[in-house]
Amino acid sequence: MINFLNDYSEGCFPEIIERLSEINYRKTIGYGTDEFCAAAAEKIKKACGCEEAQVYFMAGGTQTNQMVADVLLDSFDGVVAVESGHVNTHEAGAIEYTGHKVLTLKGHDGKVDAEELDRYVTDYYNDGSYEHMVRPGMVYISHPTEVGTLYTRHELEELNRVCRKYNMPLYLDGARLAYGLTAEGTDVTLEDIARLTDVFYIGGTKCGTLFGEAIVWTKGNQPFRFNTKVKQHGAMLAKGWLAGEQFDVIFTPDEKGDTLYTKGGKNANKLADKLKDALASKGYRMYNSSPTNQVFVIVDNETMKKLSEKAVVGFFEKFDDEHTVIRFVTSWASAESDIDELINVL
Amino acid sequence: MINFLNDYSEGCFPEIIERLSEINYRKTIGYGTDEFCAAAAEKIKKACGCEEAQVYFMAGGTQTNQMVADVLLDSFDGVVAVESGHVNTHEAGAIEYTGHKVLTLKGHDGKVDAEELDRYVTDYYNDGSYEHMVRPGMVYISHPTEVGTLYTRHELEELNRVCRKYNMPLYLDGARLAYGLTAEGTDVTLEDIARLTDVFYIGGTKCGTLFGEAIVWTKGNQPFRFNTKVKQHGAMLAKGWLAGEQFDVIFTPDEKGDTLYTKGGKNANKLADKLKDALASKGYRMYNSSPTNQVFVIVDNETMKKLSEKAVVGFFEKFDDEHTVIRFVTSWASAESDIDELINVL
Amino acid sequence: MINFLNDYSEGCFPEIIERLSEINYRKTIGYGTDEFCAAAAEKIKKACGCEEAQVYFMAGGTQTNQMVADVLLDSFDGVVAVESGHVNTHEAGAIEYTGHKVLTLKGHDGKVDAEELDRYVTDYYNDGSYEHMVRPGMVYISHPTEVGTLYTRHELEELNRVCRKYNMPLYLDGARLAYGLTAEGTDVTLEDIARLTDVFYIGGTKCGTLFGEAIVWTKGNQPFRFNTKVKQHGAMLAKGWLAGEQFDVIFTPDEKGDTLYTKGGKNANKLADKLKDALASKGYRMYNSSPTNQVFVIVDNETMKKLSEKAVVGFFEKFDDEHTVIRFVTSWASAESDIDELINVL
Amino acid sequence: MINFLNDYSEGCFPEIIERLSEINYRKTIGYGTDEFCAAAAEKIKKACGCEEAQVYFMAGGTQTNQMVADVLLDSFDGVVAVESGHVNTHEAGAIEYTGHKVLTLKGHDGKVDAEELDRYVTDYYNDGSYEHMVRPGMVYISHPTEVGTLYTRHELEELNRVCRKYNMPLYLDGARLAYGLTAEGTDVTLEDIARLTDVFYIGGTKCGTLFGEAIVWTKGNQPFRFNTKVKQHGAMLAKGWLAGEQFDVIFTPDEKGDTLYTKGGKNANKLADKLKDALASKGYRMYNSSPTNQVFVIVDNETMKKLSEKAVVGFFEKFDDEHTVIRFVTSWASAESDIDELINVL
Repeated sequence: MINFLNDYSEGCFPEIIERLSEINYRKTIGYGTDEFCAAAAEKIKKACGCEEAQVYFMAGGTQTNQMVADVLLDSFDGVVAVESGHVNTHEAGAIEYTGHKVLTLKGHDGKVDAEELDRYVTDYYNDGSYEHMVRPGMVYISHPTEVGTLYTRHELEELNRVCRKYNMPLYLDGARLAYGLTAEGTDVTLEDIARLTDVFYIGGTKCGTLFGEAIVWTKGNQPFRFNTKVKQHGAMLAKGWLAGEQFDVIFTPDEKGDTLYTKGGKNANKLADKLKDALASKGYRMYNSSPTNQVFVIVDNETMKKLSEKAVVGFFEKFDDEHTVIRFVTSWASAESDIDELINVL
Repeated sequence: MINFLNDYSEGCFPEIIERLSEINYRKTIGYGTDEFCAAAAEKIKKACGCEEAQVYFMAGGTQTNQMVADVLLDSFDGVVAVESGHVNTHEAGAIEYTGHKVLTLKGHDGKVDAEELDRYVTDYYNDGSYEHMVRPGMVYISHPTEVGTLYTRHELEELNRVCRKYNMPLYLDGARLAYGLTAEGTDVTLEDIARLTDVFYIGGTKCGTLFGEAIVWTKGNQPFRFNTKVKQHGAMLAKGWLAGEQFDVIFTPDEKGDTLYTKGGKNANKLADKLKDALASKGYRMYNSSPTNQVFVIVDNETMKKLSEKAVVGFFEKFDDEHTVIRFVTSWASAESDIDELINVL
Repeated sequence: MINFLNDYSEGCFPEIIERLSEINYRKTIGYGTDEFCAAAAEKIKKACGCEEAQVYFMAGGTQTNQMVADVLLDSFDGVVAVESGHVNTHEAGAIEYTGHKVLTLKGHDGKVDAEELDRYVTDYYNDGSYEHMVRPGMVYISHPTEVGTLYTRHELEELNRVCRKYNMPLYLDGARLAYGLTAEGTDVTLEDIARLTDVFYIGGTKCGTLFGEAIVWTKGNQPFRFNTKVKQHGAMLAKGWLAGEQFDVIFTPDEKGDTLYTKGGKNANKLADKLKDALASKGYRMYNSSPTNQVFVIVDNETMKKLSEKAVVGFFEKFDDEHTVIRFVTSWASAESDIDELINVL
Repeated sequence: MINFLNDYSEGCFPEIIERLSEINYRKTIGYGTDEFCAAAAEKIKKACGCEEAQVYFMAGGTQTNQMVADVLLDSFDGVVAVESGHVNTHEAGAIEYTGHKVLTLKGHDGKVDAEELDRYVTDYYNDGSYEHMVRPGMVYISHPTEVGTLYTRHELEELNRVCRKYNMPLYLDGARLAYGLTAEGTDVTLEDIARLTDVFYIGGTKCGTLFGEAIVWTKGNQPFRFNTKVKQHGAMLAKGWLAGEQFDVIFTPDEKGDTLYTKGGKNANKLADKLKDALASKGYRMYNSSPTNQVFVIVDNETMKKLSEKAVVGFFEKFDDEHTVIRFVTSWASAESDIDELINVL
């Protein structure tokens, strides 16, 4: 059956496995202090145009969000996020597990609005009881968002400005960053992100590695003994070099400056665009105008039922009693033939 | 200056101090295992008409809410509350500190709507990703609510029904319960609360004790080694008998069955009613129709400024750019002369 | 029955209750931001000879230890204490509840040895795996210790020196400080403690208040938004002025500079000394040479049994199969007649 | 340079990579709910002779220990372990991070003594203050231990007996279980472990997988919504099938019933034995008589210095001012030629 359920259903770029095979019997020092992690970090720093950056490799996304929030926040601080933010919905309370509240704003196409953020924080400090309230201690955004949308550079600049005003770190969850960086029409580059956020992560798991996310501390601001804190959370892999090796492979530029990371992103976006065109031409109603690899469509329940007999897709949410929002996700690994087959089915 | 800021500004019923003085040199066993706590528990159980109840005395309200939630919830559970719920706003993240999320519903006059609650929990279990989401593990309500309103018996029965359906404990925060039980027109008695909730607390601090809140586990459902857990939270007083002594005094019925607890409640409500009448007759615009000791009024900013030169009141929230909601609170200790003076000022 | 079980069995100095009665109807601002707390803080600062000190009032000892440790430690830090330290034994894991390990050293008469501490921390930093280990992040001592003994000024200076060397805060638990400061032969004053520790607390609960402990941040080092953190722990009393009022009363010096605090300490020590003399003259075997209000005696099980029919005492620990260590505690409230009666019984 | 630093320096059995390569583009459902995990679980259950077992795959050892302890313990419970237990020393306080104390016993060759355990728990329940103390809530053992030693079947039976007596789960950390099961002279089988413990884990990381540990809940006692709790800890891999695939490969028996898991164990033990013989014949002084793949030798500091120029080994601990304990570790990947080379150097 055709499957557009997710972008983490396949393994990884085959080059990663080849490399694994080559270095399999090499004895490598543990816990991420090895040469592969160092090499990958260098390539990432170069790609970010950010010499002062520090790069730390984690295994998964929820773990990364949890870890970053826990080390950035003072004990009485919360994370500001939109209601649909991954940290607020699908992490089983991982932020709260570390003692912190998620403070929510309404999302606009899945995004935090800078003015609303400003007003929220201003109101907090103006409240007579603010010392009995959770302080907005950092801002969490995802790019692409949970609904596939992207911030513009201007929007990121505005968020950065509000965060500076109130001395709150700005953190960007880049679980699907490959798809965001290579989307048509985006004006946001990796350099922009490195410049405008305090910390972000470059997602591997959903962008073509077996696992692994690369945290980038953009201002040389990795907290003291971050490694010990990672160990204490149970989040440190003994063979930490596995993540380094994978990022080293996917961040190695070819002669044109392309990497597996960007190529994977482009592949998914191109196929998603083809799908969107086909959906449009067939009169489907789109849920939003995501420019990345997640395609959201509103279908009536009958259509949904038929479709689910022929394709594995995500049921995103009930739209109304008669309609459902479904999600198709393309990936670094999707083949054009899959899209063609899907288009036939539609 | 006249002061209607709060109901915890004064000390306590003088009878409590007299009793303290009498027993001051008596050697009493520590940690709440004493005869005063036992006697107070008996009186409370009788007042609740609930023989199987277990009563445990705590020092303060936030501590009580934190403690109850922490012992009732499984690690991945959250507390369902309205957005204005005390646990969600003014406890500095005390619930999250223990690892749990507050899951919010819109409030209706500060109250949880049973149907909305039902839909919320149903949606949770119908979500394909619910195993990656925080489970609604208990329901938190306050009575009176943070805006002075009261549930009807029918509303509590409906909440009880939904909670039974989903096997979620229903917890009632009774910080101001004295004012709720004695409000004009309420059909909710202490027996109803004991019957319809799984656990609640009878507030002392805001109802005439120096400190102290009495948790009532209504179904003999006090968790195993609750005392050890209280100790572990740092929440156990060495001279635990102090709380017992105070509740013993205020729950001792006179020949008519009245207690200091109910008398204090009536006093505050009567004076609040007098104030509401005066406000109405002077054309003030009420924010809501709280039947208890909290009186909310919408005033223009000019009036607010003048008022604040003559009386200490609470600034509840900005209503719009020109108006503010202010709060007057009467208490067990308020004197009719204070109200008269305030009415003069208005 | 005569009762020497503890020093927190009675209420409080009657002057405290008198004062409570006087100010009972005064409207006082909440949460410890009132004039009573301010006045008490001033008196304590004066008694400590420490202008830069900040004083914060808590309700109980375990709560205070938990709170101080939690705000002083980085997330991967532990508290160094002797095995018999209160934080390691009788707080139901309150330190661990906040995420921190208690790192134990052998005690010497209940005390930390500075040289052993130095070696322990040096070994930590020399361990090749130290980044995977809990860092010794602060040092906890009690004075008097759990077995009634006292540090000398020289010993405190040595601990201070090691703590400075490794940049670890030194924290002193003064639950029974009144008895320590007024013990015969001690060369440690309140000024010494303020000078040599980073933070300590002056115990009220065991020294004649109803409840309350005064944290003294000796170097102006009270953490940012400590009050919010206290609230978040559920540890803030609404009527925070109650603790202030009590410390204000017991730290008010008379014309000779004596206070209720020091008078209570002297009373207990004098009676404990009388008891020790009597025990010695009757040939009892002492467990240690505590110079304060806790008296430890090794008795055979037969004697213990007889004694327990006539007096309430503490069973401290099994000494061997035939003997038990029992503990007599005198207090600020003990009367000479009680001691005489006890001596008769012995 | 020859390297005997650890058993997690290499990658994995090449068969694992081959399989990865084969299934790389297969679309597999996430979070460990896939067919590879299911197949691996079946093989493990068969190997354990335990039909009712439940198997759950984690990424790393500290994470596994933390997770198991957190779900097994009530909030006021601690983990009983020997002082040298991994949970007490080299996990950066991961147990405490979840709110639980590690309660330590002296080790005997790295092992818990059943009688001492019994006495410890009995003393706990006999202590008059036990409700203010951390309850021994589970027992942690490692097999092989941190110093390479093994429990006998009788010792495990005794531990099981004490644990049953006090209703404490017995948990076995099998990080190096392959080396324990295949050691010469051991009478402990996987079936024994499944029978005598409540939960244990089969280590992958140190026994030939890239990562991954298989928790075995031996009595069908996997806690409710364990997966949600794993997610909440940030410990769930999106491509959970990676662990399943690896365990599936290494637990597939050949015609003789051998698996890569047991073969890897035997290889390491055989080479370690050869090394031990050589060390003995050269007059080296052994630190203990570990029958598994960790070899501990006491050398004078001069020898240590020379050796460290030619081989990478672990410095286990200072023995005295003149001597150091060093550790050689063989692995599933060690070659006989490495040992020969090392023996030449010695």
